[in-house]
Amino acid sequence: MTHSPLIGKLVETLQCLPGIGPKSARRMAYHLLERNREGAKRLSTAINDAVQHVDHCKTCRTLSESETCLICADHQRNRQILCIVETPAEVHIIDHSTGYNGLYFVLMGRLSPLDGIGPNDIGLDFLAQRLQSESISEIILATNPTAEGEATAHFIREMVNPIEIKVTRIAHGVPIGGELEYVNSSTLFHAFSGRHEL
Amino acid sequence: MTHSPLIGKLVETLQCLPGIGPKSARRMAYHLLERNREGAKRLSTAINDAVQHVDHCKTCRTLSESETCLICADHQRNRQILCIVETPAEVHIIDHSTGYNGLYFVLMGRLSPLDGIGPNDIGLDFLAQRLQSESISEIILATNPTAEGEATAHFIREMVNPIEIKVTRIAHGVPIGGELEYVNSSTLFHAFSGRHEL
Repeated sequence: MTHSPLIGKLVETLQCLPGIGPKSARRMAYHLLERNREGAKRLSTAINDAVQHVDHCKTCRTLSESETCLICADHQRNRQILCIVETPAEVHIIDHSTGYNGLYFVLMGRLSPLDGIGPNDIGLDFLAQRLQSESISEIILATNPTAEGEATAHFIREMVNPIEIKVTRIAHGVPIGGELEYVNSSTLFHAFSGRHEL
Repeated sequence: MTHSPLIGKLVETLQCLPGIGPKSARRMAYHLLERNREGAKRLSTAINDAVQHVDHCKTCRTLSESETCLICADHQRNRQILCIVETPAEVHIIDHSTGYNGLYFVLMGRLSPLDGIGPNDIGLDFLAQRLQSESISEIILATNPTAEGEATAHFIREMVNPIEIKVTRIAHGVPIGGELEYVNSSTLFHAFSGRHEL
């Protein structure tokens, strides 16, 4: 043991950050202590404040410190389209890259019977209520193209069936800038089966 | 703005960590809030505790929460050899990879006249005192093989000259596992000029 105990503790706890192993954690700890103690204090406070005050938006379930998140509270947005995603990070990405201007519903996960995650654990009971009380005309299913994400999309599609709502799924295929040679076979399969006329 | 302000603040402050840009910071913030709030609390506390209590060892200048760091306080170590390094991280690396069992002196930087960093800013006045009061028989110069690190090593070598102490410099050459073809020319120059008989 050549670290002082508090530095050791800092190096250990920094490893709760995703993608940070012992070496990066050590580098970060020394950086904060040698060169940026002000930044370190601000970081400690920011983590604490966020953990204390950030909860879920009562309308769309995304992470938010206010009861209703900024997007749900924004009356400039198109309130007739609802995009369903798995995580809050995806809300951010979609909002910044697609020009989508409707509302969101965040599952905070995906159906996974083996892990005991059923419809109500991802808020589908609450989604059903929303669909009845609001006048939504289209649901966009933007769950991930994994087995569980597809199953979740399928389940929601079935659930919405009795109601008169258009349900769409985002397109899957060869990514822009990608090369056919390096794309996996199920992506290529989707690209062919989802082809459209020019 | 689709983040709540507290999440935005957290994403911003996480970028004070070395090598962390906006994307990684966002990933970290969501990870902490969605999956590891306990870890986040511990991290906030660990950063705060370290910033509050970690200062410099009064003997070797490394980062330490106690007045004398664990290495300087360890009387099992060889107290006649002193290894001089630039940063606390290097103490850790040397101690874990080399089997070195002597003491350290941490410059917390290197000579850099252009940035206004002179001998006393890297504690050389204090080093001189130590050399007089302790019975050191060898100084190992382990500053980095950069222009400034070399100049610092040279300066210390001259400074120690009047006293009867052996001064050594760690070897520089082709790294183990490296290939000659990919090693830069000044490393190769050092490897040749520092060759030894087998």
